[in-house]
This record gives sequence, C-alpha cells and structure tokens, in this order.
Amino acid sequence: YLQLRKYIIAPYDRRYRWWQTFLVVLVIYSAWASPFELAFRKVAHGAGSLMPVDLIVDGFFAFDIILTFFVAYLDKSTYLLVDNPRKIARRYLTKLWFPLDVASTLPFNLIYRLFTGHMNTGEVFGFLNLLRLWRLRRVSQLFSRLEKDTRFSYFWTRYCKLISVTLFAVHSAGCFLFWMAYNYKVKENTWIGKQMNNFKDRSIWLNYTYSIYWSITTLTTVGYGDLHAENTGEKVFNIFFMLFNIGLTAYLIGNMTNLVVHSATQTFAIRDAINQILRYTSKNRLPEHFKEQMLAHMQLKFRTKELQHEEVLQDLPKAIRSGIAEHLFKRTVGKTYLFKGVSDDLIAQLVCEMKAEYFPPKVDIIMQNEVSTDFYILVSGSLDLVTYKDGGEQFLSKLGPADIAGDIGVIFNVPQPFTVRSRRLSQVIRISHQHFKQLVQPHVDDGRTIISNFVQHF
Amino acid sequence: YLQLRKYIIAPYDRRYRWWQTFLVVLVIYSAWASPFELAFRKVAHGAGSLMPVDLIVDGFFAFDIILTFFVAYLDKSTYLLVDNPRKIARRYLTKLWFPLDVASTLPFNLIYRLFTGHMNTGEVFGFLNLLRLWRLRRVSQLFSRLEKDTRFSYFWTRYCKLISVTLFAVHSAGCFLFWMAYNYKVKENTWIGKQMNNFKDRSIWLNYTYSIYWSITTLTTVGYGDLHAENTGEKVFNIFFMLFNIGLTAYLIGNMTNLVVHSATQTFAIRDAINQILRYTSKNRLPEHFKEQMLAHMQLKFRTKELQHEEVLQDLPKAIRSGIAEHLFKRTVGKTYLFKGVSDDLIAQLVCEMKAEYFPPKVDIIMQNEVSTDFYILVSGSLDLVTYKDGGEQFLSKLGPADIAGDIGVIFNVPQPFTVRSRRLSQVIRISHQHFKQLVQPHVDDGRTIISNFVQHF
Amino acid sequence: YLQLRKYIIAPYDRRYRWWQTFLVVLVIYSAWASPFELAFRKVAHGAGSLMPVDLIVDGFFAFDIILTFFVAYLDKSTYLLVDNPRKIARRYLTKLWFPLDVASTLPFNLIYRLFTGHMNTGEVFGFLNLLRLWRLRRVSQLFSRLEKDTRFSYFWTRYCKLISVTLFAVHSAGCFLFWMAYNYKVKENTWIGKQMNNFKDRSIWLNYTYSIYWSITTLTTVGYGDLHAENTGEKVFNIFFMLFNIGLTAYLIGNMTNLVVHSATQTFAIRDAINQILRYTSKNRLPEHFKEQMLAHMQLKFRTKELQHEEVLQDLPKAIRSGIAEHLFKRTVGKTYLFKGVSDDLIAQLVCEMKAEYFPPKVDIIMQNEVSTDFYILVSGSLDLVTYKDGGEQFLSKLGPADIAGDIGVIFNVPQPFTVRSRRLSQVIRISHQHFKQLVQPHVDDGRTIISNFVQHF
Amino acid sequence: YLQLRKYIIAPYDRRYRWWQTFLVVLVIYSAWASPFELAFRKVAHGAGSLMPVDLIVDGFFAFDIILTFFVAYLDKSTYLLVDNPRKIARRYLTKLWFPLDVASTLPFNLIYRLFTGHMNTGEVFGFLNLLRLWRLRRVSQLFSRLEKDTRFSYFWTRYCKLISVTLFAVHSAGCFLFWMAYNYKVKENTWIGKQMNNFKDRSIWLNYTYSIYWSITTLTTVGYGDLHAENTGEKVFNIFFMLFNIGLTAYLIGNMTNLVVHSATQTFAIRDAINQILRYTSKNRLPEHFKEQMLAHMQLKFRTKELQHEEVLQDLPKAIRSGIAEHLFKRTVGKTYLFKGVSDDLIAQLVCEMKAEYFPPKVDIIMQNEVSTDFYILVSGSLDLVTYKDGGEQFLSKLGPADIAGDIGVIFNVPQPFTVRSRRLSQVIRISHQHFKQLVQPHVDDGRTIISNFVQHF
Repeated sequence: YLQLRKYIIAPYDRRYRWWQTFLVVLVIYSAWASPFELAFRKVAHGAGSLMPVDLIVDGFFAFDIILTFFVAYLDKSTYLLVDNPRKIARRYLTKLWFPLDVASTLPFNLIYRLFTGHMNTGEVFGFLNLLRLWRLRRVSQLFSRLEKDTRFSYFWTRYCKLISVTLFAVHSAGCFLFWMAYNYKVKENTWIGKQMNNFKDRSIWLNYTYSIYWSITTLTTVGYGDLHAENTGEKVFNIFFMLFNIGLTAYLIGNMTNLVVHSATQTFAIRDAINQILRYTSKNRLPEHFKEQMLAHMQLKFRTKELQHEEVLQDLPKAIRSGIAEHLFKRTVGKTYLFKGVSDDLIAQLVCEMKAEYFPPKVDIIMQNEVSTDFYILVSGSLDLVTYKDGGEQFLSKLGPADIAGDIGVIFNVPQPFTVRSRRLSQVIRISHQHFKQLVQPHVDDGRTIISNFVQHF
Repeated sequence: YLQLRKYIIAPYDRRYRWWQTFLVVLVIYSAWASPFELAFRKVAHGAGSLMPVDLIVDGFFAFDIILTFFVAYLDKSTYLLVDNPRKIARRYLTKLWFPLDVASTLPFNLIYRLFTGHMNTGEVFGFLNLLRLWRLRRVSQLFSRLEKDTRFSYFWTRYCKLISVTLFAVHSAGCFLFWMAYNYKVKENTWIGKQMNNFKDRSIWLNYTYSIYWSITTLTTVGYGDLHAENTGEKVFNIFFMLFNIGLTAYLIGNMTNLVVHSATQTFAIRDAINQILRYTSKNRLPEHFKEQMLAHMQLKFRTKELQHEEVLQDLPKAIRSGIAEHLFKRTVGKTYLFKGVSDDLIAQLVCEMKAEYFPPKVDIIMQNEVSTDFYILVSGSLDLVTYKDGGEQFLSKLGPADIAGDIGVIFNVPQPFTVRSRRLSQVIRISHQHFKQLVQPHVDDGRTIISNFVQHF
Repeated sequence: YLQLRKYIIAPYDRRYRWWQTFLVVLVIYSAWASPFELAFRKVAHGAGSLMPVDLIVDGFFAFDIILTFFVAYLDKSTYLLVDNPRKIARRYLTKLWFPLDVASTLPFNLIYRLFTGHMNTGEVFGFLNLLRLWRLRRVSQLFSRLEKDTRFSYFWTRYCKLISVTLFAVHSAGCFLFWMAYNYKVKENTWIGKQMNNFKDRSIWLNYTYSIYWSITTLTTVGYGDLHAENTGEKVFNIFFMLFNIGLTAYLIGNMTNLVVHSATQTFAIRDAINQILRYTSKNRLPEHFKEQMLAHMQLKFRTKELQHEEVLQDLPKAIRSGIAEHLFKRTVGKTYLFKGVSDDLIAQLVCEMKAEYFPPKVDIIMQNEVSTDFYILVSGSLDLVTYKDGGEQFLSKLGPADIAGDIGVIFNVPQPFTVRSRRLSQVIRISHQHFKQLVQPHVDDGRTIISNFVQHF
Repeated sequence: YLQLRKYIIAPYDRRYRWWQTFLVVLVIYSAWASPFELAFRKVAHGAGSLMPVDLIVDGFFAFDIILTFFVAYLDKSTYLLVDNPRKIARRYLTKLWFPLDVASTLPFNLIYRLFTGHMNTGEVFGFLNLLRLWRLRRVSQLFSRLEKDTRFSYFWTRYCKLISVTLFAVHSAGCFLFWMAYNYKVKENTWIGKQMNNFKDRSIWLNYTYSIYWSITTLTTVGYGDLHAENTGEKVFNIFFMLFNIGLTAYLIGNMTNLVVHSATQTFAIRDAINQILRYTSKNRLPEHFKEQMLAHMQLKFRTKELQHEEVLQDLPKAIRSGIAEHLFKRTVGKTYLFKGVSDDLIAQLVCEMKAEYFPPKVDIIMQNEVSTDFYILVSGSLDLVTYKDGGEQFLSKLGPADIAGDIGVIFNVPQPFTVRSRRLSQVIRISHQHFKQLVQPHVDDGRTIISNFVQHF
C-alpha cells in the first residue's frame, strides 16, 4: 500500500469499504421505499410517514458525493493510484455519474415546499423519487466485487444477487399495479377492486399483500387467475411485465445451471477416474487386490489434491518463489546431519532447487534395488525403512522430520539398499544428485563439511 | 484396513453401513410423518394413531446416538483413523450435532404426559416434532456418498435426490397449508373450505389429496385456480412458497441440463470425428472405399476405447504398476519360444517394460518392407502372416497366443519380410529392440539361452 | 462385409434396415392406437373400428419375431458377427425380450372370442392392449442409431425425439383422463362432464380434442383452469402427471441447452479470436492496415478450416494413410519436370512423406532471401513468383499445377531468389531437403534421372 | 478490395450494406403488418388503411430484386469475388429464392383490382399477404452477421434476436386467434366474445390488446384463465401454439444459459486461482505477507492479460509478423546507445527476433547474482536498478525508454551485478545472447560499430 496525499483516501481503505457497505444497506431501503411510497401515498406524507427516514438517507448519500472528491482512483493505463485532487474531481465531474448522483439525492418534495410553502402530493414527486433507484448501481458493484472475493461462496453470492433482483422485480411490479388500480376511475374495474370493492379503505399491509401476491403469481407463471388484469391499462402493463419475466426466469435458470455444472465438475472427474479403473480391471480380469490398491491410490490422490501445488508456484516471479522455499524448508534442511555447519548461503541455494512432494500413508517412495537419482529430506510425517528378505518384509527403522532418505544409494551410485515407505501423510523435499553436485562445487569449504558429516554419520 | 481397539467400529464397517442405511429408511418415515402429524392431529393422537411407530423410530435413533461414541473417525490432517474413545466423544460433544441429535430424538409429548399426567394436543408439540427433520441430514449425506459411488448410476442417484427434495417440498407445503386452514377461524374463508364447506368432517385422505394437489399445482406453476389462497395468511405463505419454488425449479432444470450435457459429450465426440472424415473425403473427392475404411477404423477405435488404458496405469506408483504387468503378461512371455529357460528375474524386468496394445480385426500391425524397431508378443486373439507376391496377397500362416511377430526383422535389422494383420480383436505386448538389448545385457547366461532358442527355432 | 451362412441375414443388410424402419412406422401407429382404444371403446369394437388394422399390424410384428431367428448378431467380446442359428436362437430366447415381444403381439381379444365364442368389451382387454407399447423400444433404438448417423442433423434428430416423447405423454395422459371420466359414476362430477354434461353422446373427435387440450394445458403448465380435476381419482392422477411433467420439462430444456451450447462453440471461438486481435492492435496502437491484414488472415483461416485436416490422417493406420496420399498426389508428382522418368516405387515413397497444405489467396508461401529447407509442388490453384527491386514489387511468372517452387534455393542451399505468393486458394505439397535426399539415395538410377532432369530444365 | 466491373457492386460495399440495413427496417414493418392486416381487415382496406404504406414497401423490395442482379458474390470453391453479370443472374435465377422474392413482392390485391375492376376483401388476399413473411430471412441473415461482428456485444445481439422471435410469435398468435374469433359464427362462443359481447364494434386497439394479452399469457404459461379457448377450433389452435411454446421457451432458456455460462468462465478462472493460493498458504501455514504478494501478483496477471498477446502473433504469416515488430520496436532499438550507427537491415532482423513482455509494477525482472542469458530493452514504463548491500536494498539509478538492462552480465557472461525491478507497468523486449551473436556475425561492420558503442558507453 502506497503513501497518499493528506485528506485523500485509498479506495481499498478498510474504513471506506465499511462506509460503502453501510451505504448499500441504505440503498436497499431506498429500493424498497421508492416504489412503495409511489403506490401507497399515505406512507409518503402525513403523520407516521417515511419522510424523515428518507431525508436522513438522502443526507448520507449527499455526504458520499462530497466524499468521492477525496477518494483516489486506479489509473487503467499505468495501474497506479491517482491521488491528485484535481484529477479526481475532473474524472468524477466529467462522467455521467455526477449529475445522476446529485439528482437521485435531492429531496424534490421538500424543495418544492420550501419554494411554494405548501405540500404537493402530486404524482410527479412520486416519480421523481424513483430517481433514487439509480443508487442500485452500488448494489450491482458490491455483488460484482463479492463474486471475485473468495472469502464469500460464489454460489451464495450469486444466489443472493438473483434473489435480490427477483424480489425487487416483484416489489416494483406489485407497487406499480396498485398505483394503477388506485388511480383508475372505476374502482370495480380494477384487478383488486373486483375482488375487494372497498380496497381503498383497507389497511396498507392488506393491499400490499394483495399486490405482492398478484405480482409473484405472475412472475412464477403460476397464474391462479383469482387476481388478473381487468382494464386495458392493466392488460398492457401485464404484457410488459410478462415479457420481462421470461427474460428474468431464463436468467435465473441459466445462472443456476452454471452453478450446478461448475459444482459437478469435480464429482464427474472422480467418477470418470474410478470408472476407468473399474473397466480396466474387469476387462483384464485383474484380481480384487489390484483393483482395491488402484482405487485407494486414486481416491487419496483426489483427497490430498490441495496439497500438490507445484503449479501454484510456477507462475510466480522467482523472488517470491525463493522466499517461500526458504521459509518452508531452510530450518529443516539446516537440521539434517549432512548440512550441519554448512554456510547459510549454500543452504538457501539448495532449498530453492528442492521440490516438495506429499505422499499419502503406505506408499513406497523408494523401492529396494531401484536405481534412483534423487535423495529426499523428510519435512513432516514419518517414513519406514523396510527390507525384503527370504520373501518376507522386515522392518528396519523409522525416519522422522529432518532425516534423509536415499542418500547412500545416490552418493555411492548403487541400487537402493531398502524400501522407503510413508507411514502417514508425509511431506518430503527432493533434490537430484546432479543439481546437488552443481550447487556444492563452487563452495569448497562447505563441500568438505558435507563429506566429513557423511563420514561421521556412518 | 487397520486393527482398531476393542468395541470401536470402523466407519467403513459393512454392518455399520447397513445400520446407517436402515436409519435412512426411518428418516424417510420421519420426514413424511412430522409434517403430516402437524396437519392432521387425529393421526398424531388417539386410537389408530402413528404414536407407537414414532416412539419405536425414536428408540432406534437414541441407540444410534450411543453408538456414535464407539465409531472411529478419519482425522483430516493425518488421514489416519482415530479410535481413541475420548477423542471420539470430545469430537461429537463439542460439535453442534450432538444437542440437535438429542433434541430431535426426545418424545416431548410423552415426557409432558409423564410429568403432568394428561395428554396435551397443543400446537407446540406438533412444532417440536418438526425438530425430527434434523435427521434429514443423513439423507443428504447418503446421497453425497452415493454420487461418488460408481456402483450406482450418477444419473439415477441425482434423479432420486431431486425427486426426494421435490416430494418433501410438496408434502410439507401441503400439510402446512392444511394446518393453516384447519386453524383459521372462518372455515369458508380458507382455500379448501371455499370448495368443500365441511372439510373438517371429511376423511384425512381426502383432505390430504386436496393438500397435495394444491401444493403440486403451485410448485409446477400449473395454477389451475380451482384451489387458491383466500385469506391474507394463506396469501403470505403462498408468496414464500412460490419464491422457494422458483429456486427449486431452477435447481431441477440446472441439474437435468448438467446430466444431459455430460451424457452427450461422447456422442458429440463421435459425430465430430465422423464429420471431419466426411468433409475431408468430400473436399478431396476421395473414392468411396477410402471413406469406408476411414469410417470403419474410427468407429472401431471408439468401440474398443475402454481397452486402451495406458493412461490408467500412468498415475499409479511403480510398485502397483509392476505387479499388474507381471500378473497379466508374465505367463505368456514365459511360454514364448524365445524366453524358454530364461530366469524369472529377467522375464519380470522385460514384462515391466512392455507396452500392451489392442488391435481391432483386419488391421495391419506390421507392414511388409517396413523397417520397424519393435517386436510383438501376442497375448490373446490371433494374427495372420501375409505376403504380397505378383500383385496379389498370399496367406502364409496364423499366429496364436504366446507367438512372436516381427522378431526376424528386428533381430537382423532388415525390412519386415511379411505383413502381420489382426484376424480378430487381439491384444499384443510390444518391446523395442533397444530396451530389449539393455535389459538382457547384464544377464549373460539368459542372453545365451535366448540366442540358442532363436537358433533352434529356425 | 463378411460372407454369412445361407438364410442368415446381416444386421447391417440394407433390406433388413428398411424392414426395421417400416416396423417403426407401425410402432407409431400402435403407440397412438393403444391408449386411444382404451379411452374410446367405440373405436375398438363394432363397425368402422380399428380392429382389422390392429390385426394386420400384429401380423407384421409376429413375422418379425420369426425373422429375428435368422439375423446374425455382433459378439461384444470378439467384435465378430455370429451367424450360428443355434447361438442366435439361444441369445434371443434367454433374454427378457422374447416373452415381451410375444405378449405384445398376441391379439388377446380375438383369442378370447375364439375360445368363448362372444366378444368381450371389458376393460381388461383395453389394458392388455397397452402391452403393445413395449414396441416403443424400437423407436428408442432408432433414435439412438440416428443420433450417431451424421447423415442426419443431430439437432433435428434430437428435436424429433423430444417432440415424440412429448406428444406421446400428452396423448396418453389425455386418453387416460378421458377413460377415468367415462367410467366415473357421477357424470357431472368429472373434469369434462362439468363443462359438457352430455359428453358421452358427443363425437369422439370432440372428446379427443378436449382431452388433448386439457393434457397439454397441464403439461405446458399454462393451466387456464377451464378444465380441471373434479373428483379425488382425477386429482390423484393429476398429481402424478404433474410430477412427471416437471421431469419432462427439465429434460426438454436440458437437451435444448445442450444443443444451443454446442452450436455456439464455433461462434465464440471466432469472436474470441477477433477480440484478441482488436485488443492487441488497440493497446499497441497499430495502424489500421495491420489490423485489417490480421483480421483478414484470421477469418480466412476459420473459413478454410475444413481443408486443413492433417489431424484427420494422424490416427489412421499407416496402410490407409499411404493409399490416400498415393491417390491424391502421385499423378501430380509424376508430372513435375523433376520426376519425369523416375520409377513408380520412388514416387510412391516420396508421396507418402509429403505434407499437404492449403493457402488462402494473397499469402506469401516463400519469402525472398528467406533460408528455407522445404520445396513445394503445386497441386491445385496458382502461385505468383515476385521479386523486390528498387523498393517496388516486380511480377516474374505464374506457376500452375505440377510446378515446383523453392527448388533452386533448396538444392543449391542459397537464400530464396524470389517471393512465392498464392494467387487464389491453392493446395501445395511440401517435402524437406533432408527427407528428399534420404529417400533418393538408395535409388541410384532414379537419382541420376532427377539430376539430368534438373540440369535440362535450366 | 478488388476492382470490379462497371455497374457491379461488391457485397461488402458500405452503401449496399446500409441499403440492406434499411430493408431490414421495412421487413420489421412487414412482419408486423401482415398478420395484423389479416386479423383486422378494417386496417387493410378503406380510408386510413395501411395499403399505401404496403405499396411503397413493396416498391423498395421490387427495386432490391433488380439490384441483386448487379451484386457480385463470393465463390465458395475459389474464395474469389465473381462479378460476371451472367453468372450472377444464373446463380440468382436457379435458386428457390428468386420466385419466392417475387411472390412476396407482388401486391396481389391491387393486381386483382386492376383486372376485375373492384376491390376484393376476401380471406385469400389476407393469406397471400403472409407470403411477405418470407422477407424475414433477411432479419435472420442480419442477426447471424451481427453475431460474428465484434463491434456488437454478442449478449445483446442474441438477446435482441430472442426478443424479436418472441414478439413475432406473440403477435402472430394473437392476430390469428382474433381472426378465428372474428370469423366464428356464434360470437358469444369465442374466447373474446364471452368476455366482451360486442367486441366487433369496439376499437381495433382494444381488440389488439386483448389478443396480445391472451397470447402472451399463454406463451409465458401464466394462464390466468380469464381468457381461454371456447370452441373446438380455438382449442385445436391453442394445442399447437402451446406445443410450439414449449420449444420456444426451452430455446430461450438454452440461449440464456449459454450466455451466462460463457460470461462466468473468466470469474471462475480468477476464483479458482485465488482459492488455490489460499489453500496452499493455509495448508503450509505461510506468513501473511507471502499470501499478499502471491495474491497481488496473480490479480495483476489477470488484469494485464490483454497485454500478453504472444499467441496473437503466432498464427500469423511471417510477413505480417515482421511488419508489426518493425512498426512497434524498430525506432526504440535504433535509439539505444548500443545500436547507434548500425545498418537498418540488421536492426530489422534483430527486431523480428525479439520477444515483447509486460511487467506489472514492483516486479523483479533480473535478480542480482542470477546468471541470465537474455538482455532487455525498455520500450515503455520505467525500471529501477537496485543492489543489495549489508542486508539492505540500495537504489542505484532509474532506466527510461530505449535503455538497455542486463547487457553487462550477458556480454561478459558474469552474474548480474544488480537487480532490475519495474517501477510501473513496463514493456520490455528481450533477445538471448546466442541469437544476438548469430545475427550480428555476418554483418562485420555493424559488429565493430556495436563494440565501439559498448566501449564508449563505459
């Protein structure tokens, strides 16, 4: 993180992030209140109305407009943060966002009252309120950020997004249809009036329930038919709402399919691997114990998959890679008998060249009589040394962390004298004889120390 | 499988698995009975009620809670089974599972009767019964296990899971809506009362049919409208049910799409391969017989695909791989004229280096005059030796299992004197001349035996 | 195709295939007639009934049962056709198919009349007729065969299959519901009777229209509600029909998605390639003419994709590959000045080693001053020889089929003296200098001929 | 673009493209008007009718038929434009398109009046008008062209196409159903007449709203049931419309799924990469600062992805590739101290061999003491030279465009004396020592210039 000018906030600042998240909560309120106040005018004005809440919310957003002038931004061509207040202001003012932000924050109704002195309850202000829905872009931004944030499950993030979109569509359509019925001249000839003649005198919540019920019945295409469009205006609105719903439903299903397909990939991979083994063993009539060994190995491989991350490191710059290797293995390597007293410099070089591997329990790492070219240092877990004599297996000894395996075979260039087998999940690091020699050669003193270590050990 | 302490059961134990499967059957009963008893109180109490059955089922689950203290578990960091009773108990007691397991097993109604001396038929016990739905996690576990078990078709496992979820949703919603109607003050103003005034006096099964019919009409979004929410409470419940249904329907479709896409992959691969050949032949105006040969070969390749599993063996540890090769081919190799009297040791080494291949009928394995570097041993099937003379093909002889093909060409390093063609589906193993020489060199005696075998044979 | 025993037919026999296709037509009739006759009993018996048609159809299927004993089959373990009549019979008789085939062919009604002497119109025969639906497996087999047959579009095959399944479901459900209404005791309390009291006296086709209308209204989940289940039996049937419909709808959508995704793959590939070029050129601010050249080349590559089938030949056995190369290029190579009078044998060997390539118009194949190692023989199209002098391009000559390009540069090992550019879509074959020398060396006489050809040409 | 004969227009001609786009607008009118005029006959004839508009539109299409004889076409076998008027005419006249184009342009109604002298308002002309729907193929062509045009978002193109298909289906079905009701003998027994007895006397737009409302209620499967088929004819039409709707809905959902899946690919790739790093760091208990470095590097890699287009150039012919490299880098390379006074020829050759790379800010390009074989020329951005002394980092100098990095190490073949690190997003070009030597060797004079440049610089 870079040092910014005084009074300028980084967009990644934790407190600024919290402020943004807090605003999203207010946006949710706005998204609910704007259509609601349009439909149920009693709520918008008079005693017990939502007006004071609206004003407070508007205040917060007004503050955010001012704040935006103090937030640095990331330049897309240089990938550097820009903290020059002039540039920040120019960027904000020349975009379409600024006028829309302002327009969605002004309390038009209050301004009208201040100028004319009396309250106007006309439709126009209900519709001007809908400008606040511009704030919804913040929700959309939040979701696209959360989708890339692995702390949150993609599935649930996406799910919440879809639910939000659906609920907003249902709420808006319901409110709008109630607004149409409320303003229609013949009360009985409206979708709600036909069922409930005196609907204007009933409670807001009853009317709201009816609206949402009708709206969701249409959206889910259940269409019981107990509530349906009566007059032409309602029919026209309904036509557009149904058209929109096809798109929304298809979008919901498309997203769900995407999530299901992605989540099933792993299961299909495992099943295909198992099936391949089963078909191979059955076609070749292999005995049961081979099948079991093959399946066990394959399942362990999938289970310990997250541990095999050679590829994680591949793409990283060399500097980071070396740092990680030193952090993970330098202490262990320094503790092995072979490298006692050896210079830090050489150990660091050795560690960078070593490759880490995990072995599940009961796997042969080195096989007796095999001619191998690598030797292994155990980092965690434990290994067994086993030898085959007279047809039976004989346990020799157990290796723990910082022990070396395969050293004799490699240094004397002879077939390995015993089998090395993992006892439990074990991590080893491996270096080839050739690399080892190349790295040690220039360090004459260290080479002598290593030889004397080796001689003393036997 | 490891030796566990006395009285401790492995989670993989066959009998324990059967017990778990038996419990899943009981869970299905609980899942059906809990909502049903809430809605139709007559079933829950009085003569002919389901209460005794419930108590027996609860007994089984109480036994399973005790049993859990004796089941070993797999530690996630070491991949070893833990059979220490203390650790098992600590793991179970410190999880949320234990209190939920207990709460879902207690027969609250009976306990109340024991303490107060009389039967309470209040709503509260109906809802406490719903705690038993916690047991459904067992079904979910079973399905996620079955999905990875290749003995069961993924398609049908997934299908059963979706059907189960759907049926449970339909059943629960139906029962809950009936419960709402039953407890509503004005009988006529309920979804069922409007159609059937005396519904409280009708049989349970008639009422149940109505409930399920309404529930499924809504879930499938058919929505005839003959039964629909009448009062506000029903409308609100309906709203939530419909919202849930969008998600469920999308999930069903997403899963089905996933299954269809996965099952069509193979068909698309075949079709694309055929199309490529057809376009190639038509663009280049190749005669019909070339097209037919190309298509026949391609189709056979797809049909015998399960036999070509070189890649199955690749990922396995060397120890298993050698064992399989010895099992499959050692006997055949030992029976060939060339390796008669050769030491077991050399044959084992040869076998490990050999590569198995399958050939469909009527395919040329070796072509006359070709300079090849491998020789082949026939494992199963039969081959024809053919030579071209005066423009026509002349049949020479037939090879059977354990016969060698291509040996003369390879050993004398001359072009192959005849074509070797598969007569039916045949498996051969193949080794290159170079590998062969490398392996035989250190075994001086065996080398002599091989040469004398070769000389005697001709 | 193999020689089979007398009276034994190959399953691939063209006439047998036509017979099978003819039977599928009869199956379609059966699938329609069986439920129809159950629902509308008047059609099944009496004057103008479908009975004679049914008997003729049954006759054809009885003949097919006998025919099956004379059709060879493909053995799955050897991939050979089995024409032994005993084996064929044993295979057919021991399978479940045989009894089901017989049971679905017997005209139970007629047999009953023969034995008892009078016609029975009871329900039992209506249901026995449904056994004929077993024949539907033939349709399923036909479709799975067509799906792999590239002469038919996969899209339309799949589409027809889905339409068939849907229509059969609609037809069966409609007929069954009519059967329920017809047999219900209270005429007015049925789904159709409530709308049309005298439905039993109305025409069959009117009733059938109502049935199908109700059935499809439910399947598509439109559910107007003008026709809906009245009594409990209808409700129960409806419940199962709706449950089935969820599955069917999901299956339809899943299949359609699969087809759409597969058909869009190519479009996405083209778009991604174009986008990559556009982003590259815009980021690097390349002049317009570079962008146009890059786009033109990329689009031509996609358009001539079907011509670049090196990979088609890769998987084929060597014998087929050589045959194709000889057929395509031997005549052209023999006609070039360089290989006039050369032995057929050498030309065949050369042709097998040559690689075919297509070039779109206006592409440089060889660039002036480039040191290339291959020379080219033009098969079709035409090429321009161009040289750069004093900054401008100068046209030298035009090459036609069987002309060689790049020969001077390759043979004297000097930089190419001129640019060779394609004039229109051209196919060339290419061989490297090294391969060429290797192949010619053993043929001493032919080598001399080639050199004298080359000398004479200049 | 090629020179065409006089009066012949290229199909890619910009004015011709605009003409085609203009015709598509007219097609949209025809698609709307044809069914509309069939249903609402008042609009088709009499005062205020659409007839004059229809005639003008027909005129434009008649002109386009004539124009087609003057438009060149692309031959599919040679990929060349054909501008021979005879060939163009033959191609158009022998296709099915010509008669259909003519038939869909003739104003049958007017022709009838010219011959018989009076206006016929019979149904037959309404249906003949439907021939104009043949023009819809132009819309289909436009969409398939737009889908491959990356200037337009694939998502929105596809979306518009689906909306268009849906709207056309809704409009046609609505009009057709109104036509059925209008021509039915018993007014009250029609879907609209039952709700509105005097529908024939009401305004066209009211009737049209009812038609569309019914049509879309069916298509979206809402099916309120307030309007539904009454007589048998309507039921039969409804059956076919619903069957068609299943297919259309499945197609809409399939397309949407395809778009969603494609757009989510990138997000999944980023999330998977992040998750892999997180699991790796948590499993290996790496300190926080390693995790942050790894994540930062990975995110920058994804963000600067569009800049790494080595693969864009790979598939291009050598001529274009060299041109781009010269354009981008020749000036920079010529400005470096090392290549001052060197011949243009050598610089061009060097530039073609150089590889461009982008580095995000704060990344080590060369590490101190590393033995590297390439040297780098900075094209844009800036680099820092840093050295490690006494455990701390020491800033040496800053490199700007046209500066060389790593030259000393490479030329003297010693370990790099300092670390080179990017200061901001930087583009460098890289050449290996070996390539460099190979290219310079033949140019003796230039080689001397380079050496003297190098000597002077130090």
